[in-house]
Amino acid sequence: MENVISRRPFLKIAIGAGLAATFARAQEGKPAGKKVGWALVGLGSLSTNQIAPALQKTSHSRLAAVVTGTPEKGVKWREKYGLKESDVFDYENFENIANHPDVDVICIALPNSMHHEFTLRAAKIGKHVYCEKPMAVSSKECREMIDACDAAKVKLGIAYRCQFEPHHMEAMRLAKEKVFGELSHIDAGFGFKIGDPKQWRLRKNLAGGGALMDVGVYALQAARYLAGEEPETISAIETKTDPEKFAEVDETIQWQMKFPSGKTANLYTTYNLNGYNQFTAFAENGRFGIKRAFGYNGQNGWTSNPEIPLEFPATDHFQVQMDLFSKAIIDGTEWKVNGTDGLRDILACEAIYKSIAEGKPMEVEKA
Amino acid sequence: MENVISRRPFLKIAIGAGLAATFARAQEGKPAGKKVGWALVGLGSLSTNQIAPALQKTSHSRLAAVVTGTPEKGVKWREKYGLKESDVFDYENFENIANHPDVDVICIALPNSMHHEFTLRAAKIGKHVYCEKPMAVSSKECREMIDACDAAKVKLGIAYRCQFEPHHMEAMRLAKEKVFGELSHIDAGFGFKIGDPKQWRLRKNLAGGGALMDVGVYALQAARYLAGEEPETISAIETKTDPEKFAEVDETIQWQMKFPSGKTANLYTTYNLNGYNQFTAFAENGRFGIKRAFGYNGQNGWTSNPEIPLEFPATDHFQVQMDLFSKAIIDGTEWKVNGTDGLRDILACEAIYKSIAEGKPMEVEKA
Repeated sequence: MENVISRRPFLKIAIGAGLAATFARAQEGKPAGKKVGWALVGLGSLSTNQIAPALQKTSHSRLAAVVTGTPEKGVKWREKYGLKESDVFDYENFENIANHPDVDVICIALPNSMHHEFTLRAAKIGKHVYCEKPMAVSSKECREMIDACDAAKVKLGIAYRCQFEPHHMEAMRLAKEKVFGELSHIDAGFGFKIGDPKQWRLRKNLAGGGALMDVGVYALQAARYLAGEEPETISAIETKTDPEKFAEVDETIQWQMKFPSGKTANLYTTYNLNGYNQFTAFAENGRFGIKRAFGYNGQNGWTSNPEIPLEFPATDHFQVQMDLFSKAIIDGTEWKVNGTDGLRDILACEAIYKSIAEGKPMEVEKA
Repeated sequence: MENVISRRPFLKIAIGAGLAATFARAQEGKPAGKKVGWALVGLGSLSTNQIAPALQKTSHSRLAAVVTGTPEKGVKWREKYGLKESDVFDYENFENIANHPDVDVICIALPNSMHHEFTLRAAKIGKHVYCEKPMAVSSKECREMIDACDAAKVKLGIAYRCQFEPHHMEAMRLAKEKVFGELSHIDAGFGFKIGDPKQWRLRKNLAGGGALMDVGVYALQAARYLAGEEPETISAIETKTDPEKFAEVDETIQWQMKFPSGKTANLYTTYNLNGYNQFTAFAENGRFGIKRAFGYNGQNGWTSNPEIPLEFPATDHFQVQMDLFSKAIIDGTEWKVNGTDGLRDILACEAIYKSIAEGKPMEVEKA
């Protein structure tokens, strides 16, 4: 891994070449080579177990601040990560981050229904936004988030970590370059058996939806990036074996997608079964896929041709995605997994829920 | 493999125990140990390359007659299989088989739309029927076939060879005995890229349907026998990339099934892609499936637990299914893959076509 010192010559070149406004803003007043500072909003298990530890392993990023509604958490995090008192904010004084000299990115790891509010607040104080998936609980919210970040000239990244995971990246290449010929059909799904019936994931007002919004979006997005186009028509049905536990959100959804080229996809998500966590791409001259595709680790790629393996060492998805986002800020380059990408998943989710509600296939609204 | 001699003691016991009417009829006037005689109707590639060669390998069955509309084929088959002139029939004099002393079973390997007619004609002359899948082109036809065979007290078997293939049988056991816990979801599909645009499979009046009726039924039936229950609701969509070639029949269909217990299945069939030929069963504590599941050979079973392998030597599916059907005739036992089983697939196919036509999920009619 690169360290701060070794990055300097590169940064000099980048600066010499003239940087985009977003970079200039984020790096304003910073000596070349300083790491991009991340403020972590929401100190739940994702932040605690994945995001913060991953930040420690990055080359271009560092944890600069935290935002929490629980003062004791602030104390703990200060100790653990050597933060100052002035690095800890709460949801009320969030806007004070504007004056924090080292915070460049607001990383939103809150329940889904809060993504919209904090993206808008972050944009307003001129900070880049890195927002957990699903992007928001409605396409209307997504569009407002995109507009707010565009207006503030800050980047908006959606944390689809699989897009930076080497098995997935190679699978995208196999599809795009037609290594097995034209792709024709995709099977994909992601689910798990959810525990605690009191958690926020089962509350509609916090999660916006159930298995689909939480984990189904991984499979949905994989189908989109493998197909290399956007779904046109979606047909979906829902199954509920425990109507009490899943009174507010979906338990199991199956959906079918048709793409403009004629490609098709069968999808599945559930909160009631462990072990569906994979995709298979069926192409003209062969097949490829990833088992344990969407988890934090354990990706196991395969192809129908032993001479074209789909094998890579394990990576820390969080480390890679965050560091690449920091790098995009430093370099002033476009960020591909952006608000529009996140919006497209939400538009598909809306078509899925509408298809279930109306009992018929739905056209997917364009981003 | 057992030979005729070694079967005699068993047959004596069976006969001593008193045989069912169907057996008495089929074996009428036959010395114990004589093989069950099969008359093969339709000498296309399936009969030529699969059924007739397989009959040569059976223990309880033999090719006793053929029915063909092409006299030259009759000559060829007489030479190849040592048949007499009196063993060769055509579609007009088919009923003369009634007087053939060695024919017990009429094996129907004709285009789908002819299954109904020849089942009724076979039943009328008191012969057992072994009919290729799909059973017929409508549930109405299926019901008439069942009624005709019931009335004539002859057996009606539908040639779903996979049900007698060891990988499939073991998969059924894994599901039924909940070796990996309760089964929750099934992915299954079967398709191939169809060649000659002039073949009968693409003519609605002969095939009754396209990929679904031809190969989709294998995946459909696998989902049914893995679930161990009948689908309640089906939602389907169709994709046509070549509307000219597939003007009369379906090219690609995706369908979703919901079972009464809450089990779900995602299905796929196509005439436009090689290589989708598999199923995966997702259960509480693991997964299992068969790759190359539905072809004449190459079954490759797997499970998520290396200690519970799903591996068997290759078998000739045709040999096994026909010989077991002969054995059921000899023993006077029930035949499980019967008309009702065939009807259930057609009822599901009708729900699939109706779902596509009406653009909404359909309830499946009960058998």
